[in-house]
Amino acid sequence: MGSETKRWLRMLMLAVVVAAVWAPLAFGQEEAAEEAVSNEMFTVNNTWMLVSTFLVFIMHLGFATLESGLTQAKNTVNILFKNTGVVAIGLLTYAICGFNLMYPGDFNIIAGGWFGFAGFGIGEAADYVAIEYAGGNYTYWTDFIFQAMFAATAATIVSGAVAERVKLSSFLIFTVLYVGLAYPIAGSWKWGGGWLADMGFYDFAGSTLVHSVGGWGALAFVLLLGPRTGKYTAAGIRAFEGHSMPLATIGVFLLWLGWFGFNGGSVLSADPELVSLVFVTTSLAAAAGVMSAMATTWIVQKKPDLSMVLNGSLAGLVGITAGADSVSVLSSIIIGGIAGVIVVFSVLMFDKLKLDDPVGALSVHLVCGIWGTLAVGIFGPDAITDQGIGAAIMIQAIGVVAYGIFSFIVAGAITLALKLTMGIRVHEEEEAIGLDISEHGMEAYGGFQIFASK
Amino acid sequence: MGSETKRWLRMLMLAVVVAAVWAPLAFGQEEAAEEAVSNEMFTVNNTWMLVSTFLVFIMHLGFATLESGLTQAKNTVNILFKNTGVVAIGLLTYAICGFNLMYPGDFNIIAGGWFGFAGFGIGEAADYVAIEYAGGNYTYWTDFIFQAMFAATAATIVSGAVAERVKLSSFLIFTVLYVGLAYPIAGSWKWGGGWLADMGFYDFAGSTLVHSVGGWGALAFVLLLGPRTGKYTAAGIRAFEGHSMPLATIGVFLLWLGWFGFNGGSVLSADPELVSLVFVTTSLAAAAGVMSAMATTWIVQKKPDLSMVLNGSLAGLVGITAGADSVSVLSSIIIGGIAGVIVVFSVLMFDKLKLDDPVGALSVHLVCGIWGTLAVGIFGPDAITDQGIGAAIMIQAIGVVAYGIFSFIVAGAITLALKLTMGIRVHEEEEAIGLDISEHGMEAYGGFQIFASK
Amino acid sequence: MGSETKRWLRMLMLAVVVAAVWAPLAFGQEEAAEEAVSNEMFTVNNTWMLVSTFLVFIMHLGFATLESGLTQAKNTVNILFKNTGVVAIGLLTYAICGFNLMYPGDFNIIAGGWFGFAGFGIGEAADYVAIEYAGGNYTYWTDFIFQAMFAATAATIVSGAVAERVKLSSFLIFTVLYVGLAYPIAGSWKWGGGWLADMGFYDFAGSTLVHSVGGWGALAFVLLLGPRTGKYTAAGIRAFEGHSMPLATIGVFLLWLGWFGFNGGSVLSADPELVSLVFVTTSLAAAAGVMSAMATTWIVQKKPDLSMVLNGSLAGLVGITAGADSVSVLSSIIIGGIAGVIVVFSVLMFDKLKLDDPVGALSVHLVCGIWGTLAVGIFGPDAITDQGIGAAIMIQAIGVVAYGIFSFIVAGAITLALKLTMGIRVHEEEEAIGLDISEHGMEAYGGFQIFASK
Repeated sequence: MGSETKRWLRMLMLAVVVAAVWAPLAFGQEEAAEEAVSNEMFTVNNTWMLVSTFLVFIMHLGFATLESGLTQAKNTVNILFKNTGVVAIGLLTYAICGFNLMYPGDFNIIAGGWFGFAGFGIGEAADYVAIEYAGGNYTYWTDFIFQAMFAATAATIVSGAVAERVKLSSFLIFTVLYVGLAYPIAGSWKWGGGWLADMGFYDFAGSTLVHSVGGWGALAFVLLLGPRTGKYTAAGIRAFEGHSMPLATIGVFLLWLGWFGFNGGSVLSADPELVSLVFVTTSLAAAAGVMSAMATTWIVQKKPDLSMVLNGSLAGLVGITAGADSVSVLSSIIIGGIAGVIVVFSVLMFDKLKLDDPVGALSVHLVCGIWGTLAVGIFGPDAITDQGIGAAIMIQAIGVVAYGIFSFIVAGAITLALKLTMGIRVHEEEEAIGLDISEHGMEAYGGFQIFASK
Repeated sequence: MGSETKRWLRMLMLAVVVAAVWAPLAFGQEEAAEEAVSNEMFTVNNTWMLVSTFLVFIMHLGFATLESGLTQAKNTVNILFKNTGVVAIGLLTYAICGFNLMYPGDFNIIAGGWFGFAGFGIGEAADYVAIEYAGGNYTYWTDFIFQAMFAATAATIVSGAVAERVKLSSFLIFTVLYVGLAYPIAGSWKWGGGWLADMGFYDFAGSTLVHSVGGWGALAFVLLLGPRTGKYTAAGIRAFEGHSMPLATIGVFLLWLGWFGFNGGSVLSADPELVSLVFVTTSLAAAAGVMSAMATTWIVQKKPDLSMVLNGSLAGLVGITAGADSVSVLSSIIIGGIAGVIVVFSVLMFDKLKLDDPVGALSVHLVCGIWGTLAVGIFGPDAITDQGIGAAIMIQAIGVVAYGIFSFIVAGAITLALKLTMGIRVHEEEEAIGLDISEHGMEAYGGFQIFASK
Repeated sequence: MGSETKRWLRMLMLAVVVAAVWAPLAFGQEEAAEEAVSNEMFTVNNTWMLVSTFLVFIMHLGFATLESGLTQAKNTVNILFKNTGVVAIGLLTYAICGFNLMYPGDFNIIAGGWFGFAGFGIGEAADYVAIEYAGGNYTYWTDFIFQAMFAATAATIVSGAVAERVKLSSFLIFTVLYVGLAYPIAGSWKWGGGWLADMGFYDFAGSTLVHSVGGWGALAFVLLLGPRTGKYTAAGIRAFEGHSMPLATIGVFLLWLGWFGFNGGSVLSADPELVSLVFVTTSLAAAAGVMSAMATTWIVQKKPDLSMVLNGSLAGLVGITAGADSVSVLSSIIIGGIAGVIVVFSVLMFDKLKLDDPVGALSVHLVCGIWGTLAVGIFGPDAITDQGIGAAIMIQAIGVVAYGIFSFIVAGAITLALKLTMGIRVHEEEEAIGLDISEHGMEAYGGFQIFASK
């Protein structure tokens, strides 16, 4: 062969190699440029996110029944009213401003990932070519409604802690401000891509962003509100019994059910491996919380207390929420198991501190929310940083403290302003006759005399 | 002709033949390529429709708990019994004849889209090659069971309005006839492709076809049945208090939950953009209904009434049902908000008219069903006609009136026939001791004396 | 260039073209050969299985509310506590050993499909390349969690039958052993690919493997436990009324809801035709059970008993569970209808036999579980064998008897051992004051005096 021929051959061989290597790459890039995933994958991802949405929705019925079950019958209408209102307020404020505060795009008000706002209202469908919006994981509408269902949770947690003595109108105004402004601004720091996201802070589904934010708000409100009349006296601590343990149990099971969407939907796609792992860690953490709370209450209180066991399952669920996708199965059992122990002692501790919390919201959502957030540093540090467990825990602690300071101050300021103006507490006589009659002019069990009189 | 000319002619003739044969084939293939979906898309579509099916199913528990919560304890067993029976009757009659009356294929009995029947019973799987049945959206079985879950709703709405004095056996017979015959025949006019579909009448998920059909049936029955004994006296209107507001609240949340399937499933596929839009409009309409009913009851009745707020959410949901896929987000808030105002005044109005409706079914389902249907003409006229808002409202009004006349007359005829033969009302003593004892020989709260005696 | 060179060049150029066209195709085909389904299909299949998982989860709330509703108020806390504990125990024991006993891979302890164990604990995600695990139907995690949700059911059934007199600690230990060991070992015979699977025994979703296994356990426990004090006396049979029919009704509707996942998920994929058929047969069997139980109770007991009708729906559901995927629609109505008749007479029969079962668990789960299993032989014999109906029924009967002997003996042995050591029954005074006070030191309706005192 002549030299020219050899040159041709070398060029051709090179072409073969290039073609073999490059063609699939080019093909792949073309695919990526066209659509991140197929329309089928987009549809199943989006469907799963909508299923998760209705699961998170039903958590609000869980909160309503849990709170009313664990409190006195004379305040039941008021509690159901609050919880219904909170859902409506959460959805509407999130549409008006919350969504665009939490996901501002760029932080156009305080740079560095602190505060941004993308404007009032939510867009129209035509603005968003559906599949490109989130790499084929969900539509703009799904993004909004899934996150909107989360929003009301922060105020619902407060609702439980302040039950049986809070003034309805003040609580509703608190809800508008705390859910409509404080929650999404705080949320933007991590889920909106702000400064805590940059730092590596990890909170998969909201042990801190949702549960402890609600818990800190509850703490601030309770401190300014004071305990129920007659709760802490010289004679000791009066136990106000819950008026319906079936309602409370229904509440806990519905919350557990909803958590499959709360955590499962936080995968933000229907990814089979991740969503199914989250189902396993979530379920086992809850189960471990039940068993460890059962053992703890049986030992500490001599008899196994149902409300402690119910709170044990919620403690496990709150505890696993920050790391449900990034800890091992065994770790999920340990995290949930420890949460179930913590919650029992925490409930007893808050009573010693004379912080009156009728449903144990501070213990479940604040204390176990903090525990769950730190637990990711211990059991799944790789999700946070490659600098080891110590650094991971430190980063998580910074997030916990940052959310604590912000939430406590904002909730305290709102509550204080309300206390100084319209008041945050019903009159003592109103508390005595119950908020159902005093605030709503009706009873929860109006037909009751019919069977009580027999 | 020269040979060249002949060659030209032959080529042209060949072109005509090829075009005649090939064009439709090519067009058909193109259509098939566009319409026929992949097996994956078929599977996710069908899965979403089945999820919607179980969501609609749980609405029946919502109706059962709402109705029993808003009525007296002495009639609770009867109400739970009715609602359980209605679901069973709805499913079975829909299998026997309802499905084939509602979707008759061609209108073989009264032409012009008025009345058709495709025969008794539902087919066997082998008759239907699955993916072709509905363009890859769902199987024949899914089609049947999703629609069957809707069917019982019409009678459940009646159940609420006639509660606490209706005779059980007569109500069950009414249910068989109204759900098994009247509902599907009326439904065929629109969803079965009948004359109202031809006219452009729009009712996405059934503000009219389901809710107002149930509402008109309730109105006819209530007129023939009369109010509860002692309701309207010279001394004024007696308020029969609901015996359990927790049950009523559980009912409303379950209905809202189920509405995600009722409206979301009415997309008839898992189309991401449309289903997620429907989730948003449905949720925001319900939330707006809650808030506007809250404001209205607080102003009108001085104290915020929980049952009004609960009905406000249902009013918003019924209102958005006709146009959930074809109005803007802002419009959905307006539609739901107006429904929440309407329902409060409507409840007060029906009491002034001495039409006794223990649960407010007429206000929620009939009045807000009409409002929601007309609202599509106002806020989404393009879904109906390109002739402008006036024409759109007119078409919607024709549909509303047509369903009203048919439903009212048929329900009235059935009820009158029952009244003249076996009677439709329990004796006054039976009403006084309660339907639980008189109709069922048991109490809803039989274990009650144990804790009432302490 | 010489002609040889040109030939080389042409061959090389051809090779380039062939490589560019063929390589990706070949690669794709190879992929297809390895993976049964596309990633999209895998995702929708897995999503449906997870939806089914949360549906089965909510059945446990259904069992809890049904059982507490049908029993006395003084034992409500205890019942709710048991049911919460059973879920937690079921999930944890299934993770520790149950899953690996039920699906041992090979039967390494007693060969021939009798007993195998794949080791303690469940694996880590990295061990399983997701899509290959089950032919693209679900992940390892989904497999585990779906089956784990089933596991607790066996003990929950026992819980209902032994309610109001069983000792809490003994029942919890029984649950650990029966759910953690007996249930999965028995299950391996069929679903784990053991000897009954080899024989052709058919039990689609567990009429026998779940329901009658629970039922036999209940029978053994009840025989050793005895009836509630005062149930069967010389004066006759005392009816202990259920204390809340709304709770019982909520329970039945939640169980029916969950059954869409129990049966629908047992398809083990989202296959459109099969899952939708299962929805239809399951719904119609339940509806037929309601109507036939209604007719039977109305005729036999003169007045229509709500608890009988509720049990009628469960009877239909248990009855269809074994063959929901393999009988016709008409057959499903017949199977459910017969189950609804059976359950009424069975409840009356067990009372005649002085086997005290407060919720009718023996009738619903044991008797109708057997009926449903045999019914597959009658209405869907082709799913079992091609040897005709007689052979099919015989194979089903062998399975029924095998599960009966094993479950009854194991449950009896566990219960007897507990009876001889720590006791299985509370003291008579404890039973009189109620298990809520005696076992838990709290009441279910603690706030009650507030409205009872008016």
